[in-house]
Amino acid sequence: MAFTVQPAEPQGTPPTDGLLHFPASSALKLEPHLPPVASTDTTTRPDKPFVTLTFATSLDSSLSLAPGVRTTLSGPQSKAMTHYLRSRHAAILVGVGTAVADDPGLNCKIISPFVPEGVREQHPHQPRPIILDPSARWEVNAESKVIQLARLGQGLGPLVFVAKEVRSVPDERRAVVEGVGGKFVRVKSVEGEEFTWTDVLWTIKEEGLDSVMIEGGGSVINSLLSLEQGGEQELVDSVIVTIAPTWLGAGGVLVCPPRAVGKDGQPVPPVRLRDVSWHPLGEDVVLCGKILR
Amino acid sequence: MAFTVQPAEPQGTPPTDGLLHFPASSALKLEPHLPPVASTDTTTRPDKPFVTLTFATSLDSSLSLAPGVRTTLSGPQSKAMTHYLRSRHAAILVGVGTAVADDPGLNCKIISPFVPEGVREQHPHQPRPIILDPSARWEVNAESKVIQLARLGQGLGPLVFVAKEVRSVPDERRAVVEGVGGKFVRVKSVEGEEFTWTDVLWTIKEEGLDSVMIEGGGSVINSLLSLEQGGEQELVDSVIVTIAPTWLGAGGVLVCPPRAVGKDGQPVPPVRLRDVSWHPLGEDVVLCGKILR
Ligand SMILES: NC(=O)c1ccc[n+]([C@@H]2O[C@H](COP(=O)([O-])OP(=O)(O)OC[C@H]3O[C@@H](n4cnc5c(N)ncnc54)[C@H](OP(=O)(O)O)[C@@H]3O)[C@@H](O)[C@H]2O)c1
Ligand SMILES: NC(=O)c1ccc[n+]([C@@H]2O[C@H](COP(=O)([O-])OP(=O)(O)OC[C@H]3O[C@@H](n4cnc5c(N)ncnc54)[C@H](OP(=O)(O)O)[C@@H]3O)[C@@H](O)[C@H]2O)c1
Repeated sequence: MAFTVQPAEPQGTPPTDGLLHFPASSALKLEPHLPPVASTDTTTRPDKPFVTLTFATSLDSSLSLAPGVRTTLSGPQSKAMTHYLRSRHAAILVGVGTAVADDPGLNCKIISPFVPEGVREQHPHQPRPIILDPSARWEVNAESKVIQLARLGQGLGPLVFVAKEVRSVPDERRAVVEGVGGKFVRVKSVEGEEFTWTDVLWTIKEEGLDSVMIEGGGSVINSLLSLEQGGEQELVDSVIVTIAPTWLGAGGVLVCPPRAVGKDGQPVPPVRLRDVSWHPLGEDVVLCGKILR
Repeated sequence: MAFTVQPAEPQGTPPTDGLLHFPASSALKLEPHLPPVASTDTTTRPDKPFVTLTFATSLDSSLSLAPGVRTTLSGPQSKAMTHYLRSRHAAILVGVGTAVADDPGLNCKIISPFVPEGVREQHPHQPRPIILDPSARWEVNAESKVIQLARLGQGLGPLVFVAKEVRSVPDERRAVVEGVGGKFVRVKSVEGEEFTWTDVLWTIKEEGLDSVMIEGGGSVINSLLSLEQGGEQELVDSVIVTIAPTWLGAGGVLVCPPRAVGKDGQPVPPVRLRDVSWHPLGEDVVLCGKILR
């Protein structure tokens, strides 16, 4: 693929199109941690998409001050990075807790970093939003941001994963979601509640989506970080964490997986990363790595 | 001052003297965050030493798996950095919780980064250890590491800060501490328990110590990170945090200051850093900054 590289900062008058800009130099540093671009790639597994776990925390590992409290943690460059990551994944997944608390847009609003200088072109790709909502408690409606954006052609209609056991989804919600090209997808659940990650990822692959970026929130991340070393160990391909230089203090939504216990019964760290690299980005730092098992 | 710069890595056969090595290139990056070197410096305050708050955490802000559980968090380069920082401060302070749980050495075992190539010379400076022990519960004895090191000339005798209200310190302990050039120092306390940081720092300055590096543990750090914005706001001059790419999981000794509340009664982040820089160091990252008030 032949890339022309954007200048590090856009030139001239500030843009008015609301599009974010992520410099090609930064994008190239992330490349080893992202799903393969070429469709000829043979490393992808047939049973699951490429999984990138990515989120932003404070120094004290909080995602937000409290559920539903909009917390500006990371700076503008990190925000641009998140949107760049969205341009590089087929799907973006959050738990229903985030959907309810934040009403997130889950779309991609970025200029491709790899277009000729001077061109301000919105990246053509939009990720497919996926919401894990086992008991169908997300009251999605025409005002929900993800629906509005899809209606405007600035995002895709969401896939809402509900448990097979849920009797029925209210007709209004189904109409709203299907009206923008989304749908409710039934997933087998354990006692009508949790899905296994194997099932979630298999379902995503079945939908023709080759890569997924998992953004949050706390419960989703902690559950992925505490996958058993047995069958589910290899599900996460890449971890990208942004850390902002601030302490949010006790009481936030924490990324903190349950304590693991070693063979001798002593506590051991649940997760260590390998192939680690750190990239300062504005006031924040971006950590890239893989889960060491 | 004329410095000759050590090569980034020591050459030839591996050293057998147990001395750590911190490259001059890394040391120079830390310089803006450290106390002034020149004795002619006029920026130091008469009422307090230069204060560097420094510690190492996991991604989930744990200092250790549990109190007293030795937890290898950061890598060898970060360990060398800690010892380099110790060579650049007159004193090193920990809470009695750390003294009891870890029996730390609190000395400096490093080659000066600024000696001619090939010279393996132990940095001549040792920091004065200070233990905050308001109720004199640290059972210091001849086997305590800090005492052993001082006896061997590889560290200094400790200053143990006890509350004025404490009746008396057992004679054996006094003999042990004074035998290596340390002493018990009386500090005014609030209800026989907490010292104010203003008093602690004033006492350090009174002892002729111009700079102090505060290393931990959890209670000490959290109390410094939650100083009131009023009188005590300017006590910490520099913050240096090492972050290791691992999650320790729920139940660790946490750095997590109490939640602050804004004028409108809403939760606000207790501390944000300014003048931030991030320095990858081995598998870890080092964050340098100042507390933004
Ligand atoms: N800083 C960031 O990068 C970032 C990113 C995203 C979100 N956030 C923050 O995170 C907070 C929300 O976090 P949260 O922990 O409350 O909610 P969450 O993780 O978004 O959602 C949790 C819910 O999702 C469902 N779920 C999760 N895992 C599942 C599984 N394996 N199978 C089936 N269902 C599953 C469950 O729904 P049921 O309860 O219905 O069973 C669970 O309670 C918000 O404050 C948001 O701002 C921050
Ligand atoms: N990773 C790192 O960089 C690092 C560094 C150091 C320590 N640590 C870890 O931290 C853990 C220990 O932390 P911790 O919170 O238990 O103990 P700590 O902070 O070392 O000591 C706390 C005690 O110090 C005294 N103290 C603290 N602030 C005081 C003040 N303003 N005035 C008077 N006394 C004060 C109090 O003693 P009283 O209870 O007697 O009142 C308090 O309980 C250990 O596991 C250790 O390994 C990690």
